[in-house]
Amino acid sequence: MLDLRPVGYVIGLLVAVLGLTMFGPFVADVVAGNGQWATFLESGVVTVLTGGMMALASSNGVKEGLTLRQTFLMSAGVWLALPAFGTLPFLIGLPNMTLTDAFFESMSGLTTTGASILGGGTVHGPIDDLPEGILLWRGILQWIGGIGVIVFAMVFLPELKVGGMQVFRSEAFDTMGKILPRAAEIASSISVIYVALTLACALSYMATGMIPFDAIVHAMTTVSTGGFANTDASFGAYGAGAHYVSALFMILAALPFVRYVQLIGGQGLPLVRDAQVRGFLVVIAVCVIFVTMALFRLVHGVEEVAFREALFNVVSIMSGTGYASANYMTWGSFCVTLFFFIGLIGGCAGSTACSVKIFRYQILLVSIGAQIRKIYNPHGVFVPRYDGRPVSEDVLNSVMAFFVAFIISVGIVSVCLSLTGLDFITSVSGAATALANIGPGLGNEIGPAGNFGGLNPLAKWILSLSMWFGRLEMLVVMAVFTTRMWRD
Amino acid sequence: MLDLRPVGYVIGLLVAVLGLTMFGPFVADVVAGNGQWATFLESGVVTVLTGGMMALASSNGVKEGLTLRQTFLMSAGVWLALPAFGTLPFLIGLPNMTLTDAFFESMSGLTTTGASILGGGTVHGPIDDLPEGILLWRGILQWIGGIGVIVFAMVFLPELKVGGMQVFRSEAFDTMGKILPRAAEIASSISVIYVALTLACALSYMATGMIPFDAIVHAMTTVSTGGFANTDASFGAYGAGAHYVSALFMILAALPFVRYVQLIGGQGLPLVRDAQVRGFLVVIAVCVIFVTMALFRLVHGVEEVAFREALFNVVSIMSGTGYASANYMTWGSFCVTLFFFIGLIGGCAGSTACSVKIFRYQILLVSIGAQIRKIYNPHGVFVPRYDGRPVSEDVLNSVMAFFVAFIISVGIVSVCLSLTGLDFITSVSGAATALANIGPGLGNEIGPAGNFGGLNPLAKWILSLSMWFGRLEMLVVMAVFTTRMWRD
Ligand SMILES: [K+]
Ligand SMILES: [K+]
Repeated sequence: MLDLRPVGYVIGLLVAVLGLTMFGPFVADVVAGNGQWATFLESGVVTVLTGGMMALASSNGVKEGLTLRQTFLMSAGVWLALPAFGTLPFLIGLPNMTLTDAFFESMSGLTTTGASILGGGTVHGPIDDLPEGILLWRGILQWIGGIGVIVFAMVFLPELKVGGMQVFRSEAFDTMGKILPRAAEIASSISVIYVALTLACALSYMATGMIPFDAIVHAMTTVSTGGFANTDASFGAYGAGAHYVSALFMILAALPFVRYVQLIGGQGLPLVRDAQVRGFLVVIAVCVIFVTMALFRLVHGVEEVAFREALFNVVSIMSGTGYASANYMTWGSFCVTLFFFIGLIGGCAGSTACSVKIFRYQILLVSIGAQIRKIYNPHGVFVPRYDGRPVSEDVLNSVMAFFVAFIISVGIVSVCLSLTGLDFITSVSGAATALANIGPGLGNEIGPAGNFGGLNPLAKWILSLSMWFGRLEMLVVMAVFTTRMWRD
Repeated sequence: MLDLRPVGYVIGLLVAVLGLTMFGPFVADVVAGNGQWATFLESGVVTVLTGGMMALASSNGVKEGLTLRQTFLMSAGVWLALPAFGTLPFLIGLPNMTLTDAFFESMSGLTTTGASILGGGTVHGPIDDLPEGILLWRGILQWIGGIGVIVFAMVFLPELKVGGMQVFRSEAFDTMGKILPRAAEIASSISVIYVALTLACALSYMATGMIPFDAIVHAMTTVSTGGFANTDASFGAYGAGAHYVSALFMILAALPFVRYVQLIGGQGLPLVRDAQVRGFLVVIAVCVIFVTMALFRLVHGVEEVAFREALFNVVSIMSGTGYASANYMTWGSFCVTLFFFIGLIGGCAGSTACSVKIFRYQILLVSIGAQIRKIYNPHGVFVPRYDGRPVSEDVLNSVMAFFVAFIISVGIVSVCLSLTGLDFITSVSGAATALANIGPGLGNEIGPAGNFGGLNPLAKWILSLSMWFGRLEMLVVMAVFTTRMWRD
């Protein structure tokens, strides 16, 4: 029998921690004097108590570490349990909120997707008018999701040998001890950097004239590459300074955090030498040049604003943040098509960014290169090398499995969404944006100027589960649903 | 130095053969009495003479076989040289024909893509009004392309170890002799079956009431899964009988031809036991059921026509033929989205069908399954098995390379098309339909009710080269363009 108690213990503790963070929005509502503070008091008490009791009830089964199967179950379970409790403030605090919508918003927050069912045109009205507590809560969900993703990607995925992340196994954190202590160790190093980046981002936003509350919430959703904003206009509400600050921090948030740990330890070289970092920056540079030229021609004329909007939106999509500074659906089909495909590239592994990630493409491409070399020399041994080291068959197969699972998932989810009545562009871009945890889709409904509030409930559930599936890098969920998982 | 003479010899001979086939349309025009016969006389003479001289000039360099590099070059060269000469009848026979359009049509024919720049709304007027010779020529291009593809897939690709086709290497044709004699041997066995299927198809079409000329041309474009039709309405011009006949022969043309060779040899079992065949038929059955239900609800009510149109169009897309019996853009977004993605599946390897092909998905999926099993038992050895035999790393890597190259190509070609000004749906579906050699795209312009005639010239060239790139299974072209190809 699979012992579920250690899993329940960890999940219970994390739910309780989530509950504690609800007292932040409680304070925000008290300070703002908007009369909404009861929402977070109730949600917080319920969540802390439930999580605490769950942990307590499971505590007699806790051992030093988790087995592999327990680790899988815990990973998948945490990203269902936290979104479930994350719904409470939405359900209690906003009138006419359905469970479907609350779960969508909560899942979108914790997976750092940033797609929202809130906004103008919905029963809840513009995001601008929501109580401060709710806005802060959305920021907190993404901020927690962001740090969760980094720890998950750096500790669990390499151990689970999922998605080729084992290629990063021997880096920086080489201790091969029990999985939980190791998670704690990494989480604490990373947390320091994560908090520092968030503070720096918030202060920079304030320096550009953003009010402190918005600066804090946006800093939280920037460093988590989450993308929830406090206004319907997203970053269209802010000026040039905020755009450049945001672009900088979105890039920083999409780089491998382990490099920052090394940087603080005095080693700056690994950061600039990292193949992922170079690849990511090169792709961004090329895209920004092309989009800037397109905007010169089609939208703005030769002005700074063209470069700035190109930079901001390319970085926003590539890093999977999903802020928009303008409705890029009106920028002509080149920008729309480019944004769709660069969203499928994504940022660096070991960051808060999502999607397929640049290192997987790099590994797949060097593998294709090795094969072409082998064609001309069938008896030669051509081991694909990535970042100076040979890529094992194991890693290559994992990367390949991830890529195939991702593409096939986009196809299946698109068809399912179209079955619920969504049009082709909404279905395909919705599937991609949810599975890659980007945020906005394409088209007028779920594009940068729209929101997900008007979709039918079934489509919302499909998208919520897709975000979960994507954030867990597909294979984790597939592993949980195999019979082998549950068999002795 | 790479000796180009054997390559030139083979290409020259094949060009001469192509020239000989131009006397078919010459006869058709003479019989029809439309005054157009000079077109094919001129084209035929020029092509035969040029091809013959090319072969003659290269004949002093001919040896027993081709080296690997020569084989790559020949494969890529044939599929450029034949389309180049295939343009002559269009250029000579149709007024206002540009080289761009002629090359597009010719490439689309020989790659069995079936996208057309002809049709209502273009300067050339409806396809229905074109001279008989031109219509027959379009059929011949596809028919030659079809047999060419089978031989290419059965003889050359396994030897070139491209796209995982080596998995079919040890089947049926086990002789490992020189590549050219083997090609001739396979080509002759396959040709008998190909001709027999074409005749059976033509007779069946006639039995449904189609006039002999249309029956013959459509038989040629059916068994080659090419999809050129003699009317703007495609198979919308015909009745239920023709639809069922066509669906049957499109399925037969998308099954592995080697199984027919075995069937004639008295072995029927390999056909019904083939994992590809089963997978292909199951996917078709499932899709037909869903599309039929969608048509029941949205278009037709519970009538036979709903099943028939579902069957015909699903088979047409899955097999990569590209006939349409109706404008399925009006069937609701589920059908549109489904058709987009099943087009990316395709038929069986070793048939005239194109796209990624069902066996590659099967191999990729069993490989993912093996990896998930390995997660729970890291020291176990789980060799993915396909069709009862273990899949080697070599094959798996080739299949993976194909899939990745295909998906990345769709992305790059889509972005390039959008740069020329095409909208998102036209760009993405145009890229997919060209690379997968299907034929129609999505949307009003290049969808089943439209044609490619209105696209800008740059887009047409991008699409023409994409058809070439896709038909050569990407990796062949990539191999030709590596420096190693040209280095001593
Ligand atoms: K996001
Ligand atoms: K076709």
